[in-house]
Amino acid sequence: METQIAVAKVNKYAVSESGDTLEVIERPNGGLSVVLADGQTSGRGAKAISMMVVRNIISLLAEGVRDGAAARAASDALFTDKNGKVSCTLNIASVDLQTGTVVLTRNNPVPLFLCRGDQVDCLGAESLPLGVGRHIRPVISEIDMEPGLTIVMYTDGLTHAGERRGRPMDVCNAITAMLEDQDPPPQEIADSLLAHAINLDEGRPADDVSVVVLKVLRRQGDNVRRMTVRLPFNPTSKNGT
Amino acid sequence: METQIAVAKVNKYAVSESGDTLEVIERPNGGLSVVLADGQTSGRGAKAISMMVVRNIISLLAEGVRDGAAARAASDALFTDKNGKVSCTLNIASVDLQTGTVVLTRNNPVPLFLCRGDQVDCLGAESLPLGVGRHIRPVISEIDMEPGLTIVMYTDGLTHAGERRGRPMDVCNAITAMLEDQDPPPQEIADSLLAHAINLDEGRPADDVSVVVLKVLRRQGDNVRRMTVRLPFNPTSKNGT
Repeated sequence: METQIAVAKVNKYAVSESGDTLEVIERPNGGLSVVLADGQTSGRGAKAISMMVVRNIISLLAEGVRDGAAARAASDALFTDKNGKVSCTLNIASVDLQTGTVVLTRNNPVPLFLCRGDQVDCLGAESLPLGVGRHIRPVISEIDMEPGLTIVMYTDGLTHAGERRGRPMDVCNAITAMLEDQDPPPQEIADSLLAHAINLDEGRPADDVSVVVLKVLRRQGDNVRRMTVRLPFNPTSKNGT
Repeated sequence: METQIAVAKVNKYAVSESGDTLEVIERPNGGLSVVLADGQTSGRGAKAISMMVVRNIISLLAEGVRDGAAARAASDALFTDKNGKVSCTLNIASVDLQTGTVVLTRNNPVPLFLCRGDQVDCLGAESLPLGVGRHIRPVISEIDMEPGLTIVMYTDGLTHAGERRGRPMDVCNAITAMLEDQDPPPQEIADSLLAHAINLDEGRPADDVSVVVLKVLRRQGDNVRRMTVRLPFNPTSKNGT
């Protein structure tokens, strides 16, 4: 088998820094974890929060700490640091080769989607963001890896898209419509959801938006691990300060 | 402008764990760093070393520590931990949006390549791996980002390919030949170098091999950050232990 992970990420319109932080890290006992956090508000302050949370989580995961325990630790650290005044959403999707499962950890009011073939399930159990109180706990789902399994998770920018103009995005419908197509590759799913959201906001995203799609497939070809990253940037940000 | 980073990575034949570890991490002041380490020997022991080094480096970079200082710190930590008996090579390639430069940090006897158009320069100044002594220092190069700049770095598995059969790989020639083509995308360069190496080893890589290609281009299209990861795995590794 193989896992493919695709990410598409855009900043709020006219804001140079995204409040969303995403990192992919290798698990010490085999596999990968995708960690996605969205700090409260937007811009530089939100970025500092989401970076702190993701940094905390990836260093705990790298030491072999379980995903759920890492989420609790990050919540307590944020609560202590900010006195419960700043929240941060968190999603972790881990490909755990030791157990042969995908582990989904969510501290995010926004749901995530789990698809098998063209059946789309919304995992939307109530879930609080990190940092808003003591004893915050994540919602955890563990799913056996099998070809055809697709996970879609995202920050709330996706669900807020179009709200300003009274045409909010229906993420579930958008995913279902896409999966009726011929088994689209994960990057196509992520790009298309993001494009849909940007379109609803008439080209000016009202919030940072990050979309992650994780797909389990039958092995396609060779044994090589691959990664591609694209980072567009504005050369005028070369300010030397 | 935009930066594209591509990675291709394969394990030594019949060894389930690669001694190479690679992570890409966001820089706190804008940009990305690619951190690649190769622990001495191969298999589980080498993996533990290279993971420790990369973990050290990425947590320092996330705190805003300069790449060179992070490399020195990781070397001292490894030297202290292993009494100078275990070495680990290190390459860091950082896209620093604050300075508008690519910063290359190398503690690796193996050179790296810097290409502009079809001119290929080999950066091969003497460089020791981390952990072999006190006062180990990296070789650092800082290059202004401009469209057409391509960096190729790799672990020594690439240069050792074919040695066993007396036909060692000439990496410089292979890169030059490829760049004479029509401006190949970075994933094609990485894949092709890796395929060449595997071919010289007759399909059974004699060592772990990792290839990283970083390219600066004129902006091609939208403002979206993207990442794709492919992780092939063997479902029989589902052993629950």
